[in-house]
Amino acid sequence: MKRRIIVINGPNLNLLGRREPDKYGGETLESINRRIALIAEKMDALCEFFQSNVEGELVTAIQNAAGSDGVILNAGAYSHYSIAIRDAIAAVAVPVVEVHLTNIYAREEFRHASVIAAACRGVIAGFGAESYMLALHALLSSGDKG
Amino acid sequence: MKRRIIVINGPNLNLLGRREPDKYGGETLESINRRIALIAEKMDALCEFFQSNVEGELVTAIQNAAGSDGVILNAGAYSHYSIAIRDAIAAVAVPVVEVHLTNIYAREEFRHASVIAAACRGVIAGFGAESYMLALHALLSSGDKG
Amino acid sequence: MKRRIIVINGPNLNLLGRREPDKYGGETLESINRRIALIAEKMDALCEFFQSNVEGELVTAIQNAAGSDGVILNAGAYSHYSIAIRDAIAAVAVPVVEVHLTNIYAREEFRHASVIAAACRGVIAGFGAESYMLALHALLSSGDKG
Amino acid sequence: MKRRIIVINGPNLNLLGRREPDKYGGETLESINRRIALIAEKMDALCEFFQSNVEGELVTAIQNAAGSDGVILNAGAYSHYSIAIRDAIAAVAVPVVEVHLTNIYAREEFRHASVIAAACRGVIAGFGAESYMLALHALLSSGDKG
Amino acid sequence: MKRRIIVINGPNLNLLGRREPDKYGGETLESINRRIALIAEKMDALCEFFQSNVEGELVTAIQNAAGSDGVILNAGAYSHYSIAIRDAIAAVAVPVVEVHLTNIYAREEFRHASVIAAACRGVIAGFGAESYMLALHALLSSGDKG
Amino acid sequence: MKRRIIVINGPNLNLLGRREPDKYGGETLESINRRIALIAEKMDALCEFFQSNVEGELVTAIQNAAGSDGVILNAGAYSHYSIAIRDAIAAVAVPVVEVHLTNIYAREEFRHASVIAAACRGVIAGFGAESYMLALHALLSSGDKG
Amino acid sequence: MKRRIIVINGPNLNLLGRREPDKYGGETLESINRRIALIAEKMDALCEFFQSNVEGELVTAIQNAAGSDGVILNAGAYSHYSIAIRDAIAAVAVPVVEVHLTNIYAREEFRHASVIAAACRGVIAGFGAESYMLALHALLSSGDKG
Amino acid sequence: MKRRIIVINGPNLNLLGRREPDKYGGETLESINRRIALIAEKMDALCEFFQSNVEGELVTAIQNAAGSDGVILNAGAYSHYSIAIRDAIAAVAVPVVEVHLTNIYAREEFRHASVIAAACRGVIAGFGAESYMLALHALLSSGDKG
Amino acid sequence: MKRRIIVINGPNLNLLGRREPDKYGGETLESINRRIALIAEKMDALCEFFQSNVEGELVTAIQNAAGSDGVILNAGAYSHYSIAIRDAIAAVAVPVVEVHLTNIYAREEFRHASVIAAACRGVIAGFGAESYMLALHALLSSGDKG
Amino acid sequence: MKRRIIVINGPNLNLLGRREPDKYGGETLESINRRIALIAEKMDALCEFFQSNVEGELVTAIQNAAGSDGVILNAGAYSHYSIAIRDAIAAVAVPVVEVHLTNIYAREEFRHASVIAAACRGVIAGFGAESYMLALHALLSSGDKG
Amino acid sequence: MKRRIIVINGPNLNLLGRREPDKYGGETLESINRRIALIAEKMDALCEFFQSNVEGELVTAIQNAAGSDGVILNAGAYSHYSIAIRDAIAAVAVPVVEVHLTNIYAREEFRHASVIAAACRGVIAGFGAESYMLALHALLSSGDKG
Amino acid sequence: MKRRIIVINGPNLNLLGRREPDKYGGETLESINRRIALIAEKMDALCEFFQSNVEGELVTAIQNAAGSDGVILNAGAYSHYSIAIRDAIAAVAVPVVEVHLTNIYAREEFRHASVIAAACRGVIAGFGAESYMLALHALLSSGDKG
Repeated sequence: MKRRIIVINGPNLNLLGRREPDKYGGETLESINRRIALIAEKMDALCEFFQSNVEGELVTAIQNAAGSDGVILNAGAYSHYSIAIRDAIAAVAVPVVEVHLTNIYAREEFRHASVIAAACRGVIAGFGAESYMLALHALLSSGDKG
Repeated sequence: MKRRIIVINGPNLNLLGRREPDKYGGETLESINRRIALIAEKMDALCEFFQSNVEGELVTAIQNAAGSDGVILNAGAYSHYSIAIRDAIAAVAVPVVEVHLTNIYAREEFRHASVIAAACRGVIAGFGAESYMLALHALLSSGDKG
Repeated sequence: MKRRIIVINGPNLNLLGRREPDKYGGETLESINRRIALIAEKMDALCEFFQSNVEGELVTAIQNAAGSDGVILNAGAYSHYSIAIRDAIAAVAVPVVEVHLTNIYAREEFRHASVIAAACRGVIAGFGAESYMLALHALLSSGDKG
Repeated sequence: MKRRIIVINGPNLNLLGRREPDKYGGETLESINRRIALIAEKMDALCEFFQSNVEGELVTAIQNAAGSDGVILNAGAYSHYSIAIRDAIAAVAVPVVEVHLTNIYAREEFRHASVIAAACRGVIAGFGAESYMLALHALLSSGDKG
Repeated sequence: MKRRIIVINGPNLNLLGRREPDKYGGETLESINRRIALIAEKMDALCEFFQSNVEGELVTAIQNAAGSDGVILNAGAYSHYSIAIRDAIAAVAVPVVEVHLTNIYAREEFRHASVIAAACRGVIAGFGAESYMLALHALLSSGDKG
Repeated sequence: MKRRIIVINGPNLNLLGRREPDKYGGETLESINRRIALIAEKMDALCEFFQSNVEGELVTAIQNAAGSDGVILNAGAYSHYSIAIRDAIAAVAVPVVEVHLTNIYAREEFRHASVIAAACRGVIAGFGAESYMLALHALLSSGDKG
Repeated sequence: MKRRIIVINGPNLNLLGRREPDKYGGETLESINRRIALIAEKMDALCEFFQSNVEGELVTAIQNAAGSDGVILNAGAYSHYSIAIRDAIAAVAVPVVEVHLTNIYAREEFRHASVIAAACRGVIAGFGAESYMLALHALLSSGDKG
Repeated sequence: MKRRIIVINGPNLNLLGRREPDKYGGETLESINRRIALIAEKMDALCEFFQSNVEGELVTAIQNAAGSDGVILNAGAYSHYSIAIRDAIAAVAVPVVEVHLTNIYAREEFRHASVIAAACRGVIAGFGAESYMLALHALLSSGDKG
Repeated sequence: MKRRIIVINGPNLNLLGRREPDKYGGETLESINRRIALIAEKMDALCEFFQSNVEGELVTAIQNAAGSDGVILNAGAYSHYSIAIRDAIAAVAVPVVEVHLTNIYAREEFRHASVIAAACRGVIAGFGAESYMLALHALLSSGDKG
Repeated sequence: MKRRIIVINGPNLNLLGRREPDKYGGETLESINRRIALIAEKMDALCEFFQSNVEGELVTAIQNAAGSDGVILNAGAYSHYSIAIRDAIAAVAVPVVEVHLTNIYAREEFRHASVIAAACRGVIAGFGAESYMLALHALLSSGDKG
Repeated sequence: MKRRIIVINGPNLNLLGRREPDKYGGETLESINRRIALIAEKMDALCEFFQSNVEGELVTAIQNAAGSDGVILNAGAYSHYSIAIRDAIAAVAVPVVEVHLTNIYAREEFRHASVIAAACRGVIAGFGAESYMLALHALLSSGDKG
Repeated sequence: MKRRIIVINGPNLNLLGRREPDKYGGETLESINRRIALIAEKMDALCEFFQSNVEGELVTAIQNAAGSDGVILNAGAYSHYSIAIRDAIAAVAVPVVEVHLTNIYAREEFRHASVIAAACRGVIAGFGAESYMLALHALLSSGDKG
């Protein structure tokens, strides 16, 4: 049976490609998702995609990922203050990889700390859309140790 | 006429019974709610129940509690940063009791402070599902002073 | 063609007129909005109004304001911690004016800092419903420089 | 055999009824204690009472509670800095419930933190003399899980 | 009788038009003051103008505004540390509006806090010379509620 | 009837005259007390004296001062952390003057803050034994306004 | 030869009697000064008086007090941030007593710390105009040890 | 003549052997004291022992150690906040060695700082009951330099 | 020509496989390096390896990486305080990826902040030895954008 | 044409030679200025001198230095809090060198930070009167790059 | 077989006897080491000695102590910031005793915290060269419990 | 006999001329050293030069400077955290001048504080390579007072 990976994106990531392209790149979220799906397919896995600007809907989406083989989560701005999302991650027995397009440690002070990182398997930040692909690799190659 | 108590639960509390049972207990929210309803009935009161993972829906639920005889609120993770919920509590002229299943003061540093406590009538934390029952007692026996 | 201004109100502002009237005034949000619309009309502009208690819906509303001539934003309690809203403001190429009914600097410590102010054109606070009217003037008279 | 509950009150609580009655209520400690004893009796339990203004005597009283079925502790001002009392609580294998008459989270900043809470079973604050009664319920109904 | 508004400018604002024009605009203080005077005239009010680099002279100027119908105050750098000016504002029974040319919340950390804001009626920041005009409107239209 | 002033000294002040005389002076507490008594007599007042190293006994002594015309309190080291003493001061309806032999603001950082000062009528520090005499004057001359 | 005492008052103290009389008392600075002069005369001393709203003029006044027998200094708001005044006090070899009308420790947080106290002989706060009289006593009776 | 060493133990150390034996060891304070006495005897010294849960009694005990050849002090929880004990140590001209059974630097954050250490000769922590023996050696071998 | 990647490991990483294997895994650094070399070879790249416990030698190694196509850097403990290493990274015009075996955000507070991250291209943490492989992918697939 | 250097001294520097000579040296400001003038002359430059205790007059003096070839500024105590002076420095397009007689980093904590340093060309501290001479060299030798 | 103890000294300890002898004593490190060796011999143990100014070499020396019976470590200034040394201590399964010649808690604020203490068996500070001898005793007498 | 000055440079300064030339200038360290040597020669002094990236080697170099007439030290990044270097400076009885090429106070927050400055004679920062020359002047002209 194919492994199932849930890709969850948070607030303002629906604007990718249109929002400050010099900072976040010119590719849309749809295009990135298509690329993730292709790579997953090659690794005999299936991806499902979810995006919301609403913190609580992200909480629910993470809860719903129970039973999957892993979550790739770009919680956007919520990474820096959503203890609710952190609790959802801790509540599901599924490895979650936190990803960021930009190197958040090179930006404003308030973006340096992630309140959700401690509940995740690991963190990948700074490689643009490539961050998602690396997270996919991380989940699928380390999945057997999860 | 029967007194009316609104029981509001926040993010991830829908997972009760399934989420880290050694920390939060093995009883589901539905079961707890049923027990609350039974006790309320004995004290000639009526309970209504609401749960949401969405901060803003909790704000609305608290606003809607105007006119009731009291609110039992477990805001979960939002307790630690939701000034919006604090403002909703301050806005309705109804006594609100903040409850927590666990002793939040014995957990991570960031769970020690509640930004909503100052707007509540009082706080009850650390007694598992029993916390809700104590809150019910607190509201119904002190209701006449509200 | 008429200029288009979006007026966005956040959590608990739907209670205006009923919530602590000595602090926030006795006028409802509907009445304030009608007054704003009238003044806008005189200045040959059109206003659209949106209110939500949900942080993520405010994020979406700000995203949707792309293409308008300005946003008047009273983010209420979210002003103090919503980096998601800050990012939405930074993402749309539209001038946003942050308004507050009360002088937030004369209230509790935690209301002194606004995490969204840095992404706004400017801030107007402390003049009651008049704050909105001043913001309208600010946007319409400085619009040509935006 | 009857369960035995020790009720320990700290500094200035001997003044209850006389000290700022609008803040702490008009009932004396003796009267509250009598009411606690009555309720305990109905629940087939026995209460012993102790009050002292001296931190070290409270430490000793908590040590002496070893072997009892629970402690109701209002450590008053010492709640905010007495690590000695915290250590005494951790040292006895008896559930301790921290109580406060007032909602300490709605008062001065320095009253928001309790250094003893982390060592207690749970916390009940803000319900006046009723706080003690709720603590009694908490100890006697949850005693079997202690 | 005409209403009387005092416009007080603090340190380095005498350099307006010459000092970092890309940050503060190219218009001189004299020109701004003339524009304020014109608008005031239309609203049947009279303006008086004062500028000083000396903190204590600003204190005195605010004291002297007693009896006027309002003060528009750009205290410049003193906004961030002059408790003396704050006390002067609190001492006169006249509404004071704090204005800033730039959005101080988008600048260096030490410019985010204003020690005088808490004593003012309200704050207007970020609209260039227009900030003064908005303050004039705020004072003259809300004057009857002062 | 003679006015009654209670003079209360805290920890280590029983060592006066023997303890670091270059810092605290060479006069014993007994000698200082005798001098206070003499001056009080001349002002037609009576002094009672109490010293203890035990925080809780100081709390009790302050409680017992209820009914007197004023308290002169040198709480020594407890000044810097005894919220229990602060609460006792707030609980008695008697003016309390905090005194210190040394200028605590010119000593170690942790001696700069007094947690009891806010509950006192005023503070006198830095004049050696003379600090007590000044406090006596303050209480007896301002007593009629207490 | 008569001893010479310099009485220096800082910003906004020229408003005494008119400024928030319930906080600062209804007596003017002139009246207080006359009373100080009278008492000084009885103790065979001479007082000189100076008031300014300008920090630098207070610095100069303190420098000019060199050669006198003591300074009574109410630096008002400057007490909380004027290192320049602190340096002036340290530079003159004359005992300086810091006085405050109100109990600054019972007011806003930012008024609790005095940056000048460490350079003074001692501090007297909270006794209204009486604070000056006590300072006079402190200087004239302890003058021989200065 | 034999040298005289005073061994002073603070709050909850009377519980040694019974209190969390895996943390503090299974030996009672009496047994430890007997062992200290034996070793002291071999080094031709005499030990006196004191234990109290009351901060002020520890202050007095340290004062009473004046004239001895050294103090071994385990102030327990008071180590972290008792400035009164610190002052007592500074007041007696006797070397005091602070000891702890556990390595306090490997425990909770609030146990890392000792407010009394600065007034002591030195600190020994982490060697269980052996810490007392090492302190004895430290005092008796370095006594001649005290 | 083959791309050249420098793999630099910092203090205590020479102990891998022997040091707390449950935390850092049971594989030695040599074995990890061999695996990296193999994967690099498949991607037509060449790896060079360096390890040192000495901060300054890591600085030099990073300087020497100038001219290479990328650096994989696990600076170990130095990540948390070596501004010297940060400056070396900023000084060479080569993309550097910071890697960590463990999820540093789930460990002690002082490991949450990396002073070198801001100077790096990105960060990968929490995937054990796999972190290095992901970094290799990140450098070789995004190399063309560097 | 001769280069023109403005030497500006702040509060209490007029006391040089008389004020704590062991800290600040025994030479008067006049004498130092004469020495600066002589050296400047040799380097074919002209110096102008200004001293004031008033912050605002220093602001004005810096503004007036516009058009000169450099400013040597010892702002004394104002260095640590005068944002007004910092703004004046940033406003004039002239290199300013901050000088201090003493090594401010070896003095009280509050003297370690200079709020004006960031706006200056550079800082020279700790060389007594020689600090001014070094600043002169710095300005005249690097002037061509200013 | 003889027990083996490694004595490791950090930066500037090679200067002992020459460096500020009134603070660190007049004995050289060589002499102290000889004394340690003699005492060890009497207790049937063998000591090896190492000193370096280089943090990384201390890391290596601690790694090399694996297999020994204990380490006496005076890491000097590195005690206050070397997480690399802390990690080395945690990595070797050997008891390490942290020693300091001086009472670091009585010196500058930044010397009060040791980042390595948490990883050590215990801490001995303030007894001059005697600190090493006490550490030897601690290791050899408690070695059997290590 | 010629005076001897030791010039010590820390981490990454070996890259001067190649590393971010717009920030640090285009001149190499060798060239700067040659210029320093020439000027020293003219002042009848001799310079020795040392550079290392290794903190401990800088410690040793400073120790070796004992006996010289002064040290010019640019400790680079280590300036901000090397207490080991600070201790080395305090240990040698030689005046040390801290220099920086850039104005560190105008850069990132973490570069504002120097932990070594307090142990130095003085600080010169912000004049590029000229900073070294000024330090040479400072040492040679004030050397006779060292």
